Amino acid sequence: MKKHNFNAGPSILPREVIENTAKAVLDFNDSGLSLMEISHRAKDFQPVVDEAVALFKELLQIPEGYSVLFLGGGASLEFCMVPFNFLEKKAAYLNTGTWSKKAIKEAKAFGEVVEVASSADANFSFIPKDYTIPADADYFHITTNNTIFGTELKKDIDSPVPVIADMSSDIFSRPIDVSKYVCIYGGAQKNLAPAGVTFVIVKNEALGKVSRYIPTMLNYQTHIDNGSMFNTPPVLPIYAALQTLRWIKAQGGVKEMERRAIEKADMLYAEIDRNKLFVGTAAKEDRSRMNICFVMKPEFKELEADFLKFATERGMVGIKGHRSVGGFRASCYNAMPKESVQALIDCMREFEKLH
Amino acid sequence: MKKHNFNAGPSILPREVIENTAKAVLDFNDSGLSLMEISHRAKDFQPVVDEAVALFKELLQIPEGYSVLFLGGGASLEFCMVPFNFLEKKAAYLNTGTWSKKAIKEAKAFGEVVEVASSADANFSFIPKDYTIPADADYFHITTNNTIFGTELKKDIDSPVPVIADMSSDIFSRPIDVSKYVCIYGGAQKNLAPAGVTFVIVKNEALGKVSRYIPTMLNYQTHIDNGSMFNTPPVLPIYAALQTLRWIKAQGGVKEMERRAIEKADMLYAEIDRNKLFVGTAAKEDRSRMNICFVMKPEFKELEADFLKFATERGMVGIKGHRSVGGFRASCYNAMPKESVQALIDCMREFEKLH
Repeated sequence: MKKHNFNAGPSILPREVIENTAKAVLDFNDSGLSLMEISHRAKDFQPVVDEAVALFKELLQIPEGYSVLFLGGGASLEFCMVPFNFLEKKAAYLNTGTWSKKAIKEAKAFGEVVEVASSADANFSFIPKDYTIPADADYFHITTNNTIFGTELKKDIDSPVPVIADMSSDIFSRPIDVSKYVCIYGGAQKNLAPAGVTFVIVKNEALGKVSRYIPTMLNYQTHIDNGSMFNTPPVLPIYAALQTLRWIKAQGGVKEMERRAIEKADMLYAEIDRNKLFVGTAAKEDRSRMNICFVMKPEFKELEADFLKFATERGMVGIKGHRSVGGFRASCYNAMPKESVQALIDCMREFEKLH
Repeated sequence: MKKHNFNAGPSILPREVIENTAKAVLDFNDSGLSLMEISHRAKDFQPVVDEAVALFKELLQIPEGYSVLFLGGGASLEFCMVPFNFLEKKAAYLNTGTWSKKAIKEAKAFGEVVEVASSADANFSFIPKDYTIPADADYFHITTNNTIFGTELKKDIDSPVPVIADMSSDIFSRPIDVSKYVCIYGGAQKNLAPAGVTFVIVKNEALGKVSRYIPTMLNYQTHIDNGSMFNTPPVLPIYAALQTLRWIKAQGGVKEMERRAIEKADMLYAEIDRNKLFVGTAAKEDRSRMNICFVMKPEFKELEADFLKFATERGMVGIKGHRSVGGFRASCYNAMPKESVQALIDCMREFEKLH
């Protein structure tokens, strides 16, 4: 049975990314060695990193003066690296869910943290819009897509202070104006690579402005100075990221990724809104294109486990909602084909007919 | 042509580890999904982590009261995590080379650091033995194997204070008495897995004794409390580590790994000592079994590039010495077959005959 991978992350990757990586695991570049056993200093591997950086810059139209880094540790490590590197006195954070909260918690150890707004009282079902960013903040931090709650900030915002964004789960799903940010980071395990590599886009001249000592590995400057090779980088995840970046380019770039994301999200949200059994959980204007959250209407609440079973039997994988929201979550990252979204819609329709 | 992979790290892994991982990249556990796109919370993946932890404990005979963690960031990140978690006032370090120096540098930001001894004046060609560990130090830090300089501390030491060891490049190459340590850590990319995962063995009750705030991701307790799943762990490298651990067990465990390591190292050092062209760089009693460093004798110095070419043409990979030592380095990790060591010896003999 064909599996439709709606996992929230680690999540679906293009089949050719998987196949190219499997091939390189057996034999990297016809070297007679596995991708798992080559040196990161091998002359065959430097071009992998170089091309991955170049494609990042090309696909996201990153302006001059920014560096692209591939690190270990995940976005959760960035939650403390960001204040380590940027927070001198005060930082502003927008609280849009679990990951924002974790980022805020880490920053509080480094200085004053102003939570400019929060949708916690509404279980993070919308992105707050009315707030003032303190003009004396060192930066303003946002989480552009909230994987757990299914909301997304789909536009680059204007801010009087430098913006830093966690884009773990929507990077490469739309064009972004990188010049509006001093730092964009994310775990790669949604739209880019298998788990194990973190991407960081950082504006070079924004660094070096804090007075504290920064441990070497937590200092972005270390990794800029060493082209992400200060220590052994996660070789295989970076190789897989390169395969995905090539795939995105071949498919038409981030504009095409956005067109597809809108198309898939529109299809599924239309069914959620039409189907008598289901209801979406996020405010319509803030609905995420990446993580589509929905629950049973209160009067059908008892059918929840049945639908999960019904859909699982038809090949749907990973559609159980996060415990913070309940119900269902269909993650529709770049690699998710429209056909899989249609298969889920078909499930929802069939199940509706039965009830 | 058969390649003999003498890379210092990332480095040779058992062929079945590579093949099992490639297979799982295409289809993990007959799930219809790739190892690269399954959730770390999937019920199929938890057993991977559990078995890897159990095999760590079994193979190294880790006593009760210790945790085994799989983290991201590499051993270089541990250089600051160790003092973050253990250094309250004073720490003692043995300086045996590049990696020790880096660990010392990070620790200095956290408290007083006593370098009890150093072989820097002899280009780290031996392991200092005459030194006193301050009885009031919070811990004593050692690097058991010095990848760059080819020296190795092949015995667990006695210390009046808790010992912490970077075992990146010799873990699983001999039995160790874990009870003598409060923390053992290392990048996995030598004897365990591809790059991208760090192992940490930590004594639970040794934690929680420093008064500083520790960022969440840098606090070992976070990862103990969450079974290495506080955030998304490096799924594929952990899976590959499990394959290696199974392989070590099937081969006879760490005692057998030690027997083979001694056999291979003895073979190669015997040739280095016999051959008129070459000379070893490390003090004999401290010679590493993992990284065997040798140079041309002064009178044959001009043949260095020739031998490198000669050996490379015969399938030797990664035998160029680190620039800090020059000459040659043959890394003979667990997965290195005796036949590859013999192939290198044959090269050395043939080359000797030509000159």
